[in-house]
Amino acid sequence: MSKPYLRLDKNDAAVLLVDHQTGLLSLVRDIDPDKFKNNVLALADCAIYFDLPTILTTSFEQGPNGPLVPELKAMFPDSPYIARPGQINAWDNEDFVNAIKATGKKQLIIAGVVTEVCVAFPVLSAIEEGFEVFVVTDASGTFNAMTRDAAWQRMTAAGAQLMTWFGLACELHRDWRNDIEGLGNLFSNHIPDYRNLINSYNTLQSQ
Amino acid sequence: MSKPYLRLDKNDAAVLLVDHQTGLLSLVRDIDPDKFKNNVLALADCAIYFDLPTILTTSFEQGPNGPLVPELKAMFPDSPYIARPGQINAWDNEDFVNAIKATGKKQLIIAGVVTEVCVAFPVLSAIEEGFEVFVVTDASGTFNAMTRDAAWQRMTAAGAQLMTWFGLACELHRDWRNDIEGLGNLFSNHIPDYRNLINSYNTLQSQ
Amino acid sequence: MSKPYLRLDKNDAAVLLVDHQTGLLSLVRDIDPDKFKNNVLALADCAIYFDLPTILTTSFEQGPNGPLVPELKAMFPDSPYIARPGQINAWDNEDFVNAIKATGKKQLIIAGVVTEVCVAFPVLSAIEEGFEVFVVTDASGTFNAMTRDAAWQRMTAAGAQLMTWFGLACELHRDWRNDIEGLGNLFSNHIPDYRNLINSYNTLQSQ
Amino acid sequence: MSKPYLRLDKNDAAVLLVDHQTGLLSLVRDIDPDKFKNNVLALADCAIYFDLPTILTTSFEQGPNGPLVPELKAMFPDSPYIARPGQINAWDNEDFVNAIKATGKKQLIIAGVVTEVCVAFPVLSAIEEGFEVFVVTDASGTFNAMTRDAAWQRMTAAGAQLMTWFGLACELHRDWRNDIEGLGNLFSNHIPDYRNLINSYNTLQSQ
Amino acid sequence: MSKPYLRLDKNDAAVLLVDHQTGLLSLVRDIDPDKFKNNVLALADCAIYFDLPTILTTSFEQGPNGPLVPELKAMFPDSPYIARPGQINAWDNEDFVNAIKATGKKQLIIAGVVTEVCVAFPVLSAIEEGFEVFVVTDASGTFNAMTRDAAWQRMTAAGAQLMTWFGLACELHRDWRNDIEGLGNLFSNHIPDYRNLINSYNTLQSQ
Amino acid sequence: MSKPYLRLDKNDAAVLLVDHQTGLLSLVRDIDPDKFKNNVLALADCAIYFDLPTILTTSFEQGPNGPLVPELKAMFPDSPYIARPGQINAWDNEDFVNAIKATGKKQLIIAGVVTEVCVAFPVLSAIEEGFEVFVVTDASGTFNAMTRDAAWQRMTAAGAQLMTWFGLACELHRDWRNDIEGLGNLFSNHIPDYRNLINSYNTLQSQ
Amino acid sequence: MSKPYLRLDKNDAAVLLVDHQTGLLSLVRDIDPDKFKNNVLALADCAIYFDLPTILTTSFEQGPNGPLVPELKAMFPDSPYIARPGQINAWDNEDFVNAIKATGKKQLIIAGVVTEVCVAFPVLSAIEEGFEVFVVTDASGTFNAMTRDAAWQRMTAAGAQLMTWFGLACELHRDWRNDIEGLGNLFSNHIPDYRNLINSYNTLQSQ
Amino acid sequence: MSKPYLRLDKNDAAVLLVDHQTGLLSLVRDIDPDKFKNNVLALADCAIYFDLPTILTTSFEQGPNGPLVPELKAMFPDSPYIARPGQINAWDNEDFVNAIKATGKKQLIIAGVVTEVCVAFPVLSAIEEGFEVFVVTDASGTFNAMTRDAAWQRMTAAGAQLMTWFGLACELHRDWRNDIEGLGNLFSNHIPDYRNLINSYNTLQSQ
Repeated sequence: MSKPYLRLDKNDAAVLLVDHQTGLLSLVRDIDPDKFKNNVLALADCAIYFDLPTILTTSFEQGPNGPLVPELKAMFPDSPYIARPGQINAWDNEDFVNAIKATGKKQLIIAGVVTEVCVAFPVLSAIEEGFEVFVVTDASGTFNAMTRDAAWQRMTAAGAQLMTWFGLACELHRDWRNDIEGLGNLFSNHIPDYRNLINSYNTLQSQ
Repeated sequence: MSKPYLRLDKNDAAVLLVDHQTGLLSLVRDIDPDKFKNNVLALADCAIYFDLPTILTTSFEQGPNGPLVPELKAMFPDSPYIARPGQINAWDNEDFVNAIKATGKKQLIIAGVVTEVCVAFPVLSAIEEGFEVFVVTDASGTFNAMTRDAAWQRMTAAGAQLMTWFGLACELHRDWRNDIEGLGNLFSNHIPDYRNLINSYNTLQSQ
Repeated sequence: MSKPYLRLDKNDAAVLLVDHQTGLLSLVRDIDPDKFKNNVLALADCAIYFDLPTILTTSFEQGPNGPLVPELKAMFPDSPYIARPGQINAWDNEDFVNAIKATGKKQLIIAGVVTEVCVAFPVLSAIEEGFEVFVVTDASGTFNAMTRDAAWQRMTAAGAQLMTWFGLACELHRDWRNDIEGLGNLFSNHIPDYRNLINSYNTLQSQ
Repeated sequence: MSKPYLRLDKNDAAVLLVDHQTGLLSLVRDIDPDKFKNNVLALADCAIYFDLPTILTTSFEQGPNGPLVPELKAMFPDSPYIARPGQINAWDNEDFVNAIKATGKKQLIIAGVVTEVCVAFPVLSAIEEGFEVFVVTDASGTFNAMTRDAAWQRMTAAGAQLMTWFGLACELHRDWRNDIEGLGNLFSNHIPDYRNLINSYNTLQSQ
Repeated sequence: MSKPYLRLDKNDAAVLLVDHQTGLLSLVRDIDPDKFKNNVLALADCAIYFDLPTILTTSFEQGPNGPLVPELKAMFPDSPYIARPGQINAWDNEDFVNAIKATGKKQLIIAGVVTEVCVAFPVLSAIEEGFEVFVVTDASGTFNAMTRDAAWQRMTAAGAQLMTWFGLACELHRDWRNDIEGLGNLFSNHIPDYRNLINSYNTLQSQ
Repeated sequence: MSKPYLRLDKNDAAVLLVDHQTGLLSLVRDIDPDKFKNNVLALADCAIYFDLPTILTTSFEQGPNGPLVPELKAMFPDSPYIARPGQINAWDNEDFVNAIKATGKKQLIIAGVVTEVCVAFPVLSAIEEGFEVFVVTDASGTFNAMTRDAAWQRMTAAGAQLMTWFGLACELHRDWRNDIEGLGNLFSNHIPDYRNLINSYNTLQSQ
Repeated sequence: MSKPYLRLDKNDAAVLLVDHQTGLLSLVRDIDPDKFKNNVLALADCAIYFDLPTILTTSFEQGPNGPLVPELKAMFPDSPYIARPGQINAWDNEDFVNAIKATGKKQLIIAGVVTEVCVAFPVLSAIEEGFEVFVVTDASGTFNAMTRDAAWQRMTAAGAQLMTWFGLACELHRDWRNDIEGLGNLFSNHIPDYRNLINSYNTLQSQ
Repeated sequence: MSKPYLRLDKNDAAVLLVDHQTGLLSLVRDIDPDKFKNNVLALADCAIYFDLPTILTTSFEQGPNGPLVPELKAMFPDSPYIARPGQINAWDNEDFVNAIKATGKKQLIIAGVVTEVCVAFPVLSAIEEGFEVFVVTDASGTFNAMTRDAAWQRMTAAGAQLMTWFGLACELHRDWRNDIEGLGNLFSNHIPDYRNLINSYNTLQSQ
């Protein structure tokens, strides 16, 4: 049995962004679009902030699924980008798995659209190959809450760690003293309530 | 302990449709009727599309439970059809189990009404006999969400894989290149958002 | 003040379907897609069944809004179809208003996407011009329930009658004896619970 | 304009129970079945307790709509019972309106299935004819909350008073001293929380 | 028609607290008990803070309805307290109406349990007698949201102003300069989020 | 590890009803009171119908917790009835455990108020002593859904089977042929939708 | 009585942003923070895009309420900015009303925090003075949905038009041909679903 | 595998209150603020009532996170108070762990803000070090229900016991006879429904 605490380590983790495509996003209805957009970009910002190797993949972007969300493409210009010719489970694509293995990391952070397919399938495959897998649940979306709940139970039963982007950032950062301003900035950009706290604080400080 | 990823294989799976009867359907209140009807027919379409051996069974169709939904009867004219004389757990019916065993498959895909009885009982029995069992949660319905949640926890604890019809289709298909048009058609018929994407795409393509 | 009961009269009513386009439909999140698709097609079936003059209009269908839902186009091949060059409130389009006035009807049944714009604007304009206006709320969709609630209050305050497709069909039909089979068929095709009742009934009748 | 307080008067009120039929009840999904059954029987008990003339009517009970709920039939053996041959709006049935007028009452208490049709139509017709109309909202049911909300807005705009069976009972009774035990009994039978209060109280009293 | 803005005036308003009794409170299920208790006490604090004449009344406190909530009794030791012998609508009790008229105020602020009876009945009666009536909706509770919604629509249609205790306090206070500390204290005691803001602010100020 | 399917056997099961007291019931807010009352009585009817040894217990019934619900007392006049002098976990009461062991059954069916205490504590104790434990979730109630969810996860992790009264009845009965009328009656009395099906069916049969 | 359609006219409308302060925003719980932030900024973008005179006001920004959200301050550097010394209803502040009257507009678009106070009070005051008032409901927030509902009913009864920022933009723009790119851009920046449509469209166009 | 029933023992348990700071509390949106405040204070009262060693810790209280809630500081004047200089997981702070180990207890009761970070991280660390860990879920808060659900699944999978403050109090107390008045008082102060029961009871007793 695995140890109770699979803890993220920024030196041993890679990020996989699976099928965040402009067409597929219209299928996501278990999270409000404003929030979902924010969560996905927050996760991308985390990947960059913690300098994690990141791999992008898409499914059929020439067709109705649409292109990768342009913001993501722009944020990771040098990352491996695997436009899969047909495999639904990205893990069935050799280039994708090779790109992962090339990172040398044993912890995989996964998010994508839709949760029970584009996320759950590679999650289960990766666990089977011995990786420690962390699902960024709030940067993954699907048709409705019922579908999501079923996918979560399947992944949890297999040993996946269910995270959110904020918990992920905190577990990777470990200690505010590593960089107060950088992390504070990241939170301010993606958590309106935190931004308000900071703005109130700064105003009072400067009075 | 079972391996982390019990993966559906279209060559080793059979479908069991349990008690989708016109009277019993009025008991289903954890899923909206429009959506539920669509989900059940989508699962049936998957069974046909992937050419999976399918077994139908009903409970007391002469009485208030009502007949099998006519659409299902029409879609599987040659499938084994077991009108159980009284057994509540379909697995207690020898004909039903024999029909399953006759398929030679070791993966069972199960959906039915109501979830905590007509689905959960044969699910638990099948797991006990060594089958790999996949519950199509969104083609199974019951009285309310609380009842469903309890049933899910019982089945999950026993090792059942919670799926939805869309995840099931994707896991069975594996690669779009096996047949783009057929799968796209199936999705277009049962996912309005996907149909819209395809219609927008086709219109733009033809301009 | 208007009389308490503005009652639909199939001899004096026209149907306006506003901007049910494949792109815009991805904005609708206050009604589940399966149910919304069903409601829109049910309303269209009512228009045909009661032989009501029907007018279709779209906004910018060459661009991202996408084409009119193909099913609607196919159902009303001979109806006036006004692809508006830019007016957001369809009532600002002279062709649209002329088509309405050409019907000679004084009751207008309106549905569209999105509720607070494509529906509410012509609703308010039509009331101002003295029409009796009936909003088919469940064949109209928008971003979320809060937006819908605000739009409903604005339209109600102006005197619009809030209907649903089923209530509309019943008010137009008035008496089952006018045609039992036709109306029953329409309900069976769009109300799964009703279909189940009919199937149970027919089975018992034939035993 | 009507006066602000249309107040129920047990000497001037009649009760109309419209289409509470065993088949149609399966369409009701805006109220939980346990609660809805309780509400309808509570309203019926109120009608008997306050000795209000009560009129029953049904639509097509030979067909899939099913018979009147047997409990209601048994509770009002001598009440006018109008099995309408086809009119959807019960007010279009002369016998129904005659039965109402024969009561000589000017306040009408209406409940039925489904709210936006079987309730709203006669509500609007009765208001138009000058009756004061009280809708028992929780003894009236329909497909979903959205449909109900639209129907409520239509009826409210026309001047209907939205009530529930408990408020109705209280407004009719006016003063507990008219009969403490009888009303307490009615509440104990239909409000579990009230029954618990009474049982706790009685136990303590008897110690 | 009444003018658009019926504005509370602390020199012309009285508070009526109707039937907040320990037994009846177990019937309240449309507001969470922690929040409801807070709201009722906040309203009572407002009555004291703004020095508004306050009238308490109860229904059958010897029986299962239980005594008035002790906190309220303790907060208004010198206020008129009318234990009604049986009248359900408090306005039917002469002592109650006399106590109100003795205040000489023409604005009445009303809260109570349950909303559609103990609140709505005197609200409607008071409007009929020409008072301006303000319902404190969040210090009034009832069986469920559906019941509350119906009661709100009935009261709104009659001209009642729907308020909450916070809006009431703000409308009565008019200007923070009348007393910053007192009002801030009242808010800090009843709005945890406001208390946090104040505590953060004070800490920063004192650094 | 336990086998996947712990299946209820009417010859080896006892029922424990824990603290369904008139005062404590006012704490239950995760299930609507109408539904909860029905579920508890349905479970009691099951216990009688399947002739299962049943044990009643209460906590402090002289005080504010109130007496056992009178209906339950009346239904089980000869069952062991343990009014615990103070133990919160009923399993800490020797008489209670002795009564259980005296039944000689190894399967325990437990329901009570509140779920995370009166149910969860004896559930966990019983599992620890080797019993197979079945929680009747819908005849057990507590403060809110969050509390219930936490309690369910704790009990599930320990190996409890989460059931509802309907699933329990079906698993105990096994085959309709054992007694069609009796079980049908039980369902008709506690499931309004089922009662409607039966009434529709009977009417059609008798035509 | 006012005419049915109070229609926004960009040449006759001013925008009032009331108390969007960093501290007060932590009180807003009826809209998710990600969505609320987006809505407020979208409304601000509309004010700029349509070149509407805009007036900012705050309450006690030195204290715990916190400063105006910095983004708003930055977007309207030259707009009247009234830091109210104490008036809760901004309309009680002479500078604020003078600034409004100085615009010469008779339509007022209002949003703020919290809805039932900072929005509702000036809304009611403005209506009383003869302005046409449009509430931007989704850029206004408060403690919970119940509070919002009460505030909406009070404002609607007084004649306020309930809008959302999207409806407002559409009603002001009137015709896409006035500026396709500008409005499309505004929507793309604040409606993720619309942005996806545009990105899919542009990609296909460029292929 | 751990035994099924990890049972709290007041002689072997310590309480950890993590980051209940005035700023961070504005992030909590999965529990209503009135209820959350009550839950946290109830847990603190339990710690004092059962005389459990309690450890307080905060993160960055000089900055926007704000100071520890003053009530907590006041309730535990002599408890270890660790203002962490930067560690996000409190378990990474040596002083914190030393303070825990100094208690000599092997059961840890943990609550904090936010659930998936400040609670989940030390929970997982403590389990890994062999402690029995009990999460007080309702005295722990976070951004939304989805985030909470993911955190619960992660902690449950690792073996944490999910509790609420009421269940915790009951499991620690074991037997009412240990102190009826003290525990009754604690419940009366934090459970309005229980307070009402007691007040009704006391009134009846004294009559």
